[in-house]
Amino acid sequence: MIPQLKYDEKGLIPAIIQDAENGDVLMMAYMNSTSLEMTLDTGFTHFWSRSRQKYWKKGETSGHVQEVREISYDCDADSLLVKVIQHGPAACHTGNRTCFYRNIIKGQKDE
Amino acid sequence: MIPQLKYDEKGLIPAIIQDAENGDVLMMAYMNSTSLEMTLDTGFTHFWSRSRQKYWKKGETSGHVQEVREISYDCDADSLLVKVIQHGPAACHTGNRTCFYRNIIKGQKDE
Repeated sequence: MIPQLKYDEKGLIPAIIQDAENGDVLMMAYMNSTSLEMTLDTGFTHFWSRSRQKYWKKGETSGHVQEVREISYDCDADSLLVKVIQHGPAACHTGNRTCFYRNIIKGQKDE
Repeated sequence: MIPQLKYDEKGLIPAIIQDAENGDVLMMAYMNSTSLEMTLDTGFTHFWSRSRQKYWKKGETSGHVQEVREISYDCDADSLLVKVIQHGPAACHTGNRTCFYRNIIKGQKDE
């Protein structure tokens, strides 16, 4: 059962996509209640594209689909964490494994 | 130098907070350009509270501050990933280690 989630004024909720295998954060995208249902029904991530104003299945054209392993929601019920098996080499349309490939502050050596 | 980031119509950008030590996603909160600067200047996470309409340093009252290790931004430059050393037992105000402590779909055994 889907809990009562808090969608924003556009009906969207941010979804953090995390690699279930190594913990890397791969991307952030937005779902609405329908794309969350599509995700639950199919077992693959579906989002709402704010720029294209349409539903999209991640990897629909590239084949780099995301198989869902776990979905959690936060204390405020206004964001989602989705752990996935990332198929193919890249989650990012740039060809990078993760969309977060540029740093403002680099990691410290003692991490 | 801070890159050109895309803030939303309210001047906000979502920031995913990840434990630098074990990769757990701890919380999601919003920054504006000033709270990002406060974060960079102090080395501890600062956010903009949408509900209270004020700046807050994470852990200001609880002592559960977040020491910044790395900040990345995504391909669209409209979300941030902040890796932190979480001080104290909990990132969440509920006392849970992470704000994402409730599941819609539980993890599979073969993860």
